[in-house]
Amino acid sequence: MTDSVALPDGTIETDAVVVGAGPVGLFQVFQLGLQEIRSHVVDSLPRPGGQPVELYPDKPIYDIPGIPVCTGQELADALLQQIAPFAATFHLGQTVAGLERQPDGRLRVWTSRGQKFLTRTLFIAAGVGAFEPRTLKIEGLGRYHGTQVLHRAGELSLQPSHHLVIVGGGEDAVQAALHFAEPGAQRAASVTLVHRRDVFQAVPEALARMRALCDSGHLQLAIGQVIGIDEQDGRLTGLTLAGADDITRALPADHVLVLQGLSPRLGPIAEWGLDMQRKLLVVDTEKFSTALPGVFAVGDINTYPGKRKLILCGFHECTLAAFAAAALLQPGAERVPLQYTSTSPRLHRLLGVQPPTID
Amino acid sequence: MTDSVALPDGTIETDAVVVGAGPVGLFQVFQLGLQEIRSHVVDSLPRPGGQPVELYPDKPIYDIPGIPVCTGQELADALLQQIAPFAATFHLGQTVAGLERQPDGRLRVWTSRGQKFLTRTLFIAAGVGAFEPRTLKIEGLGRYHGTQVLHRAGELSLQPSHHLVIVGGGEDAVQAALHFAEPGAQRAASVTLVHRRDVFQAVPEALARMRALCDSGHLQLAIGQVIGIDEQDGRLTGLTLAGADDITRALPADHVLVLQGLSPRLGPIAEWGLDMQRKLLVVDTEKFSTALPGVFAVGDINTYPGKRKLILCGFHECTLAAFAAAALLQPGAERVPLQYTSTSPRLHRLLGVQPPTID
Repeated sequence: MTDSVALPDGTIETDAVVVGAGPVGLFQVFQLGLQEIRSHVVDSLPRPGGQPVELYPDKPIYDIPGIPVCTGQELADALLQQIAPFAATFHLGQTVAGLERQPDGRLRVWTSRGQKFLTRTLFIAAGVGAFEPRTLKIEGLGRYHGTQVLHRAGELSLQPSHHLVIVGGGEDAVQAALHFAEPGAQRAASVTLVHRRDVFQAVPEALARMRALCDSGHLQLAIGQVIGIDEQDGRLTGLTLAGADDITRALPADHVLVLQGLSPRLGPIAEWGLDMQRKLLVVDTEKFSTALPGVFAVGDINTYPGKRKLILCGFHECTLAAFAAAALLQPGAERVPLQYTSTSPRLHRLLGVQPPTID
Repeated sequence: MTDSVALPDGTIETDAVVVGAGPVGLFQVFQLGLQEIRSHVVDSLPRPGGQPVELYPDKPIYDIPGIPVCTGQELADALLQQIAPFAATFHLGQTVAGLERQPDGRLRVWTSRGQKFLTRTLFIAAGVGAFEPRTLKIEGLGRYHGTQVLHRAGELSLQPSHHLVIVGGGEDAVQAALHFAEPGAQRAASVTLVHRRDVFQAVPEALARMRALCDSGHLQLAIGQVIGIDEQDGRLTGLTLAGADDITRALPADHVLVLQGLSPRLGPIAEWGLDMQRKLLVVDTEKFSTALPGVFAVGDINTYPGKRKLILCGFHECTLAAFAAAALLQPGAERVPLQYTSTSPRLHRLLGVQPPTID
């Protein structure tokens, strides 16, 4: 197994960086592992699993071959177990911010958190892009992002005199509303939950508690669309809401917590000069390589004739990409021979298993 | 779901015939099922599962994505469960014997057992070929095949005056030797187990019993190579054995049971005029179609740039082939839209599942 080296400035020298910890990115780690190549994995989300875990952790998937039914979470868990022997390093909660070819042919890659890599191969398994919180697109609001406008409940620090507006209609928004409006909790002067219609998606217990807190006056519901902001002396002071009843109201707001789910963003990958068609990376079907040597694209982010955005297709793609990368990393190796995990002692050693031997 | 029709002469009219019931053939049934195409499956073996079940049912496989470890039998069982909703018809213990294009464009296919099909699409998922018993290649022996020389223990009918020679060193051969030599069982005048060296692959209990039956004189072991036959009046009477000790011996033999495992044979598929390279069918990577319209090749039997003989690659190939077939079978459909098993009510109906709905 290759080993990565950390340079004095924190740059990690490695043979492979995988962008995306969804099912295909995880299986990329597995196939690279079978080729004795260790991976560093970057993902924007705080945990591995990608879109299936983030968007439908409990939804049954029926078309993973050999698995009649599994949830997105179960699939991710199984893949994490499968790749455990290869001890990949995960760099979570960050996106790839840049890519630059070095004079020696290696790729310099850096992330939004400043982690730097010098890698010989790069596998873009970024799905539909990095998942980032969906923002509220209101003129002027952007300049308060990170101060008065936040997208993660955990980042919010309230004072009793503050008016809090939470925007969203899903589980995250409802749970945040309960958290801040609950009597005895960290309290604000007012907590208002804004959603475009009076339908909230959350577990029944949470919905019942939400209605009870409204009845007791601890929580306000405001049904309508945010259409503007109020500011004073460079400070956000409120939101303007167009109600379902066509009446425009002003909501006082010292803090706005926008919890409208996640939205994928391709980000800087789109600016690396790779051949793209409809925001997808064009690859060949032999190596699943982009036109940039050493840069592969696998899973939902790539396109080729016949392409179908199915997880099982990504598994195939990352497998052939791993063979191509292995040939690239082993000078003189035209084509890496195929070995089977059921019979190869070398692969058994890599996997850390010792199947029963028959004399 | 399309339905197949049996014509008065027993010919089955159908949309799809799948040749091979290995993992890829089984998943081909699944992907065709999602396209509402019902499959008829032909396999030379008496049960589905193909090579993994036949050659290594208990050997762990580690590289099926999302399944950290499974045996060949477990993989086949899981796939059979997965395809159950699509009620494919299996035609086992027979090989495809011929293929002919009809004037209406359909394909006439028939098997070694005389089953005829008129099908609109054909999926060759035949792996390395149809598995057939490995024969003993001795001059003159062939003319006794099916009478005095048999390749399945179940076909043998002995008389007490008969001399039986069993050839082979694996589990099947050892078990057959025990079966016929065991005192009280259907007995012969003599039972001799012939193997080229004194090493047998069988479970320890069977090996111990084998040695005990040798000690008690119920079973003879003959270590060496069969090099000739003895005949009299058009009847096989014995085998000539070259012993490891270089001594040639004559073994009386009224019946020879050859149990040397299975060997794949591509059979008539090689004679259909399909484009072949090194006994493999050349396909494109968009549809995994051969040059013959409606005839697809998936899994270990096909070749294309980058091809790797891995089960997971076959899963991808048969998936794209199913989409291509669906477009072919639906006149006017240029490209069949992709739906997801996790979200599509249509696919849920086909799969017979009703996942929890969220309001």
